[in-house]
Amino acid sequence: MARVHNFSAGPAALPERVLRECADELLDFRGTGMSVLEMSHRSAAYQAVIDDAEATLRRLLGLDDDWAVLFLQGGATLEFAGVPLNLMRSGTAGYVVSGHFAEKAAQEGAKYGDARVLASSADERFSRIPDLGPVNEACAAGGLDYLHICQNNTIFGTMYHELPRTGDVPLVADVSSCFLGLPIDVARYGAIYAGAQKNAGPAGVTVVLVRRALVAAGPLDVCPTYLDWRLEAAKGSMYNTPNTFGIYLCGKVFRWVEEQGGLAEMERRNREKASLLYSTIDESKLFHGTAQPESRSICNVTFTTGDPALDKRFVSEAADQGLVGLGGHRLVGGMRASIYNAVRLESVEALAGLMRSFERFL
Amino acid sequence: MARVHNFSAGPAALPERVLRECADELLDFRGTGMSVLEMSHRSAAYQAVIDDAEATLRRLLGLDDDWAVLFLQGGATLEFAGVPLNLMRSGTAGYVVSGHFAEKAAQEGAKYGDARVLASSADERFSRIPDLGPVNEACAAGGLDYLHICQNNTIFGTMYHELPRTGDVPLVADVSSCFLGLPIDVARYGAIYAGAQKNAGPAGVTVVLVRRALVAAGPLDVCPTYLDWRLEAAKGSMYNTPNTFGIYLCGKVFRWVEEQGGLAEMERRNREKASLLYSTIDESKLFHGTAQPESRSICNVTFTTGDPALDKRFVSEAADQGLVGLGGHRLVGGMRASIYNAVRLESVEALAGLMRSFERFL
Repeated sequence: MARVHNFSAGPAALPERVLRECADELLDFRGTGMSVLEMSHRSAAYQAVIDDAEATLRRLLGLDDDWAVLFLQGGATLEFAGVPLNLMRSGTAGYVVSGHFAEKAAQEGAKYGDARVLASSADERFSRIPDLGPVNEACAAGGLDYLHICQNNTIFGTMYHELPRTGDVPLVADVSSCFLGLPIDVARYGAIYAGAQKNAGPAGVTVVLVRRALVAAGPLDVCPTYLDWRLEAAKGSMYNTPNTFGIYLCGKVFRWVEEQGGLAEMERRNREKASLLYSTIDESKLFHGTAQPESRSICNVTFTTGDPALDKRFVSEAADQGLVGLGGHRLVGGMRASIYNAVRLESVEALAGLMRSFERFL
Repeated sequence: MARVHNFSAGPAALPERVLRECADELLDFRGTGMSVLEMSHRSAAYQAVIDDAEATLRRLLGLDDDWAVLFLQGGATLEFAGVPLNLMRSGTAGYVVSGHFAEKAAQEGAKYGDARVLASSADERFSRIPDLGPVNEACAAGGLDYLHICQNNTIFGTMYHELPRTGDVPLVADVSSCFLGLPIDVARYGAIYAGAQKNAGPAGVTVVLVRRALVAAGPLDVCPTYLDWRLEAAKGSMYNTPNTFGIYLCGKVFRWVEEQGGLAEMERRNREKASLLYSTIDESKLFHGTAQPESRSICNVTFTTGDPALDKRFVSEAADQGLVGLGGHRLVGGMRASIYNAVRLESVEALAGLMRSFERFL
């Protein structure tokens, strides 16, 4: 059948060209007589693959050698532990709880030290990024190993439009669902990590970017060796066998982003798509957005009719018309359109059109 | 180019039919209009994929519901920590050190408790499985949360031909490089785990099989949530996004193994291949095996001329003739032929032929 309009929150749409290249190379990777799936991670051919992925990502983000680039496994969830295990050396860190995963990260931090929740929007059902005033004050007061944020809240459709002012406290961000969706000012961060399965590639790869100086002292004693960022940096993400195929595919996506015009162009496209959906929502009498306007994400757009049965009917009609993955997360209900880099404007136009006709003919 | 003879130790050769199916489905998975790479792990279509993989694996191994089947990430290396974090509840476990990874597992265990090395063949350069007498005695004496072994030592080309008698002590085995290469008497084990990238699929999936009763009490407090086997069992390996594509590919490999005749047939073929290589080695005046005969692996065959320069020349000539991945691990040198399920007899015949002609024309 024709390719559907895929609004899944992750794993998510990939650029069709990347998939075609991958299918073409699947039995014989560039004349090696084997699939990249079958290739030793210690081979020269594979080393060239991971080196190219890293180099392309460094160009996209403007990362110099002060930064280590790691391709790990286990998702952001495993790195919720990786962050405190590597960085909570004096035993106290700050967390902003802006959603479900931000909360999970804080809970994981509390296993290894004093993980202080400095701000939370839980009492507003995570419909916005919390007020950062108390966060900035706590950072200015010092004594924190890092401040952790979840920069885009996939489930709730919110994102930071302004970063906390952390001063000397390293800012650590789970950027899973906005990674490569817009430029990022790396100078503001100490560490940045993301599950790849949104904008960057398939599920099964976690990208961790960390300033080498931050991990120079090594991890806590109870840190599983696999999670030792200093060691992984020294070993080029190959302390053990990495997800070789996943990294290969990420590399192709990084190249695609670069060829399309880089992160500024991704942001332009994502804002255009988001803007179309938010204006459709704002003009509608049937649909309303669940995120407060000042915190709206350009990656995940959440909306609802307010009637669960009607929401269900909309999701089902959409699926019948080849628009899939629109069901909201069980914690929020309603609809969620994830409009990552590989989701084309025409898909978003189709969704906006469907929303208008659904409302008209209801 | 034509597909090469791939003797890589892992990632390793995959059945060509599996790769062809995967390439055919890469842009449109069974009429869904999307790649399996793009599919939500929460979708019904994907649930069917992981359910089928699990069901096929249970049939192959004869696992009933007393066992949990987990598809995780991070390789056996991450599970070197997962084992003690989930099972070392009273704080003492036994380890047999039969090679490099067995040693790494013991070192990781020592982070979380008293990881006692009950036997080691380090002083024989891991050329054999250690004498199990003291291991059996220690198990009989009790007081161990588990006994850990590495059942096939990829680097050294050795494997257990007889298991330790652990009595009431749960036997925990890293079976990475012999998993699905021969039948396994699951009744003897408490937990079994394997990186998939040998016989079971691509790099980036770790299969963990564990008796539910063993993890009923939950993990140690410092266990990263991702590594909590009880939780992963309750969540069907989807506490967070799994390596969806990797599991899909493993499922195809499991089906292939089943259709080829199951584990008994895999063992028959692997013994036939190993036997051809070992007899070639034993008849040669140039090559000799590095593993002691009573411990020889049927999965990884290690051999050398004794002269590093000549070994290098052999590996290079082999590569010129389309036999790749034959260089031994840096800890051992020489040659290593990994002859996993997807390596066909004709590849092994080509290798044996090359060994004979190399010796003749030297």
